[in-house]
This record gives sequence, structure tokens and C-alpha cells, in this order.
Amino acid sequence: MKNRGEFGFIEGIREMFASLPDNGFEGIGDDCAVLPIGNDEALVFTSDMLNENIHFRCDISTPYQIGYKSLVVNVSDVAAMGAKPVATLLSLALPKSCFGNWTDEFMRGYHDASTKYGVKLVGGDTTASVNDISINVTAIGRVPIANIKRRSAAKAGDLIMVTGKLGASNVGLHDLLAGRTDTENAKIHLAPEARVEEGQWLAQHEDVHAMMDISDGISSDLLHILNESQVSAIVPERYVPVAKGAVLYEATNGGEDYELLFTVGGRNIQQLMDDFEAKFGKPLYVIGSLIESEDGNHTLGWECEGGIRYDEKTGGYRHF
Amino acid sequence: MKNRGEFGFIEGIREMFASLPDNGFEGIGDDCAVLPIGNDEALVFTSDMLNENIHFRCDISTPYQIGYKSLVVNVSDVAAMGAKPVATLLSLALPKSCFGNWTDEFMRGYHDASTKYGVKLVGGDTTASVNDISINVTAIGRVPIANIKRRSAAKAGDLIMVTGKLGASNVGLHDLLAGRTDTENAKIHLAPEARVEEGQWLAQHEDVHAMMDISDGISSDLLHILNESQVSAIVPERYVPVAKGAVLYEATNGGEDYELLFTVGGRNIQQLMDDFEAKFGKPLYVIGSLIESEDGNHTLGWECEGGIRYDEKTGGYRHF
Repeated sequence: MKNRGEFGFIEGIREMFASLPDNGFEGIGDDCAVLPIGNDEALVFTSDMLNENIHFRCDISTPYQIGYKSLVVNVSDVAAMGAKPVATLLSLALPKSCFGNWTDEFMRGYHDASTKYGVKLVGGDTTASVNDISINVTAIGRVPIANIKRRSAAKAGDLIMVTGKLGASNVGLHDLLAGRTDTENAKIHLAPEARVEEGQWLAQHEDVHAMMDISDGISSDLLHILNESQVSAIVPERYVPVAKGAVLYEATNGGEDYELLFTVGGRNIQQLMDDFEAKFGKPLYVIGSLIESEDGNHTLGWECEGGIRYDEKTGGYRHF
Repeated sequence: MKNRGEFGFIEGIREMFASLPDNGFEGIGDDCAVLPIGNDEALVFTSDMLNENIHFRCDISTPYQIGYKSLVVNVSDVAAMGAKPVATLLSLALPKSCFGNWTDEFMRGYHDASTKYGVKLVGGDTTASVNDISINVTAIGRVPIANIKRRSAAKAGDLIMVTGKLGASNVGLHDLLAGRTDTENAKIHLAPEARVEEGQWLAQHEDVHAMMDISDGISSDLLHILNESQVSAIVPERYVPVAKGAVLYEATNGGEDYELLFTVGGRNIQQLMDDFEAKFGKPLYVIGSLIESEDGNHTLGWECEGGIRYDEKTGGYRHF
């Protein structure tokens, strides 16, 4: 379940539904819900809603781009569990003016992203709305149980890694808002990609412990791993791989990079990094390490020139 | 997949995604998507979106009622496949004014309906919206493959049945719009129930062929069965069970009754009806029968005093 609002809201929902039968599902707290289905396999489920003028603007993104991105941000959550995305359900609420061309272009983008990631559209809903476009995608993935990567599996001593440079999407958004529509970063913001192959590859390595995707920025997202795993982190600011054109703050607090954030233990970390680069033609980046928490406080410490600065509260983009 | 808009839109999507791998899923065309998972079992999936001032009005429904109904309409689709609903994912887009009390009351209603039907909340998303409240629920069900009831399984010669009287919800809506908030039908409209036990019971009978839930009215919903099964129907108007306070048109073209509509073949129909009444303390209603289609046209003929009136196009409530 997403935790874009108050931490307390999701916690409240967890408690509220605790007494209900789990019907075989694992609890809330990861990128996806998990349902073991036998034969050492599980299905994973995630839902993301995208709303006009909150998640996208029709004067900045084409309907094709909005359709493409709606699929990508959801398969990214599936990838973050180490699972293979297999299907989606799509709900579309549209003002009457959007029916016709807008919807056709949206579906073309959704279809092209579905084709890229090999994901079938198996159901959904189309309906009218009075004012805003609202899009909901539920993505379903399939994964060997042994490969599932949970936010709660990080251990003190793990290194923290990311699959790519950060901040480009945030810079791209600012480019677009300023009318610079042709920059490299603007294109990255408009047409993000999900690390689906990388996620499944990393999932096969038992030294990879916790994993999630970076949707709100590591300063916010990493805290979810820390809280779920009850550990703390030290991240030297100089280790953070900053995308071309971005500054550190955009790399740590911008959103929508959709790179994978994960922790790795064991002795074969260099081998993992070499193998990843050989396989994907790009490096992994170590950004810090996990340490035991003191006094039950799971803190994210940024090592900078003046010492260590602690994030007291979640940063990243907040909708409320 | 819902077919609330143009028939052609869903058909277009079917064609668009036909070349993608199905990843084990059955095609679009039922109340739910179906994924066999081994051990002669399948999971079923459905998504429904509810939007402010389209599906509900905040001056008519309380947040509790909206939450309750959001869960019910989705488990109703699961019930219509003969499946047991097991879990939901809930996405909520809310204007800032709704965060807090509104959401708490909404969640209380959602929780109470979830408890009633034994369904766990396993994930979702909460986010802001600029203007409207938008709610999406994805429901997941589990069913023995032999029990799945598809819209495409109806046969010429089958009787057509419904699990209850029709039209009350539509009358209730008009009561509410006229300020009569305390009528029996107003209560039915605000707090519908899904036929979950009935659906699973009917699903165990192999003489029950096609099944779906009545969300848009039988004049519209029955056409889906006719089209998917390539048969035609004759429905004597006098057979339609009209709820107290409703007229025939409301029973056939109103929506949101959430009774089950199904077809039955074989010789033991009276036994099925008797057993149903003994089990649930209420009768089944035979509303008509299926006949072979002529010239490839799957028609719904209403037998009335003047002869037979044919529905040329889908009736029911249309959002576009």
C-alpha cells in the first residue's frame, strides 16, 4: 500500500483491518500485496491512482504519454517485489470532452507500454467524471516465493544501492513547467521506464534483502525500508548518483525516478555489481549502509561535510 | 471488464491487446478476469470506479454509505462469477477538504462491508484530487474452476432467472433526489447488498450456466449474456418481479439492484428453486427463456400484451 499521505493513515487502516481473516494474503506494508498460490509461487498486487493536475497536466503531457506512464508506474511496483508483471486492470474516469481522440491516444500509450513489459490488459472500467481525469491501474505480478523482496528484509550491515542516477525526472518536470519541452530530462519525466528486468534479476540473488522502487525520492522512500526493517541508515551525500543537470536535493527529494532502491548483505557484493554491469551495460551505485537503530528510532543520517544531518520526518513529494 | 460506455470501445481494446501474451489469463468479457492458479482453482479480478456526482452525491449519501457501497458493488462482480471474494485494493483520490473526518467515516463503512463479506483490504493508494472524489476498488475472488460462471455459457433452451425483485434501488434514488430520505427503497439504494452466498451456492450447480450481476438493469445486462453466448431471449414482461413501489420500467431499466441474473438448463429446475428457497428463505424468479438467434442477431424480446417488443440497443443507465 502506498503511503503518500500521513504515515498514521495507513497505520490506522492496518489496525482497522487486523481482525479480518487474511484469506492467505500477507499484511500491508510493501510495494505490493502478496498471495502465495502454491507450487512455491506467489501473486503480487498493486494499485496506483493518477489524477489530473496532481500527477499529470494535460497541457504538459500528451494523452499518449499519460497512458504510457500510467502503466509504467504500476509495473515498477511489481518489479520492486522481484516479480514479473503479468496483467493489469485499468479504470478510467473521463470528462465527456475526453471521450474519443483523447482516450484513443491514451490507450495507444498504455498499449505500447504494456507491449514493452509483456503485460496483458485483463479488465477494468470506463466511466464519466464531472471535472477531472482520474486513472487507476491495478497491476498483477507473479514470482517464485523465494525471490520476493520485502521492505522488511533489510539487515544492519547491508549496503544500500540504487540501479541508476537520480533526479532527472524532477529536473525534467521543472523544464516542462518552464516551457523547455525538448530537454533530455523532460523526455525522461514524460516517458519513464520501469526496472522490470533488473528487478527480476536482483530478486534471484539471496544477498539482495529489501527492495522497493523510488517514486517519491530516496529521502522519503528509504525511510519505509528503515521503518519496516527496524534499522537505521547512513548515506554519505557524495555517494548519491546525481543525474546530469540535477543537484543533490533533486536526486534525494525529487520523485518519479522509478529506479530500484535495495539493500545487499554478504561477501559477494563486488561480484553482484560486476555481474549486473555485464548483464545490463550500466552500473549499480552504492549510496550508503544500514546500521542498528538506537532507542527504537529508525533514522536516516546524511553524511555531509559538517558531520551527519538526520532526516526527522519523511521528505519527498507529499500529496497532503 | 465493464461495458458502461460504447460497446465498441471495449471491443476495440480487446482487439488492441489480442496480440499480447495472455500470461495465463482468460480474455475480457465477463464480470471478472480469470486466472487459473493450479489445483483446479482460479482467481478472479474486477475493478470498479465510483466518481462524485456520477455514481454518488455527497449531499445524498454519507461517507459511511459511500464506503460501504464501494465495497459491495465490487464483491457483487466477484459473486457473479460464482467466486468467494477474498481481498480488495482501494484507491482514494480526495480533495483536501475530505481528509480527516470524511475519510474516517468512509473507511468505517468500507470496513463494515469488508467484515460482512469476509474480505481483507490488502493494498491501495490514497492521493489528492483537485475537484472530485474518485474511488477505485479492485476485488479479488477465489473459485474452483469447475464452478466459474461465465456470461458465454448460456444455451438456447435455458430459463432466465433472478435472485430477487428489481427496481427498488432506482425508486430509492428518486426518493432521495426528491428529499424523501427515510423510505425503504432509499435505504436499499444507499446500502445495497451483494449476493455473495447465493452466487457461490448457485455456482456449485452445473445446471446453472451463465451468471452476472444486475448493475445497469436487465434490459442492458441481459444483452451481455446474449452477445457473449450468441443466443436470444424472450422475457414476458409479466414475469419480471417488480419491487414494491417500483414500476416495470424501473425494474428493467433502473440500475444498482445487485441481484444475480443467471440461466439454468436441465431437468431439475424446480428442485433448484425449492432448494434455493429452503436455503435462503426467499424465492428465485423465472423471467424468461433463451432461444436460438436468427441471422446472427442476438435479440432481447419483451413479450407484452401487444406481442413482442424488441430491444434494438442496450438500455439501462449509460454514463456516456
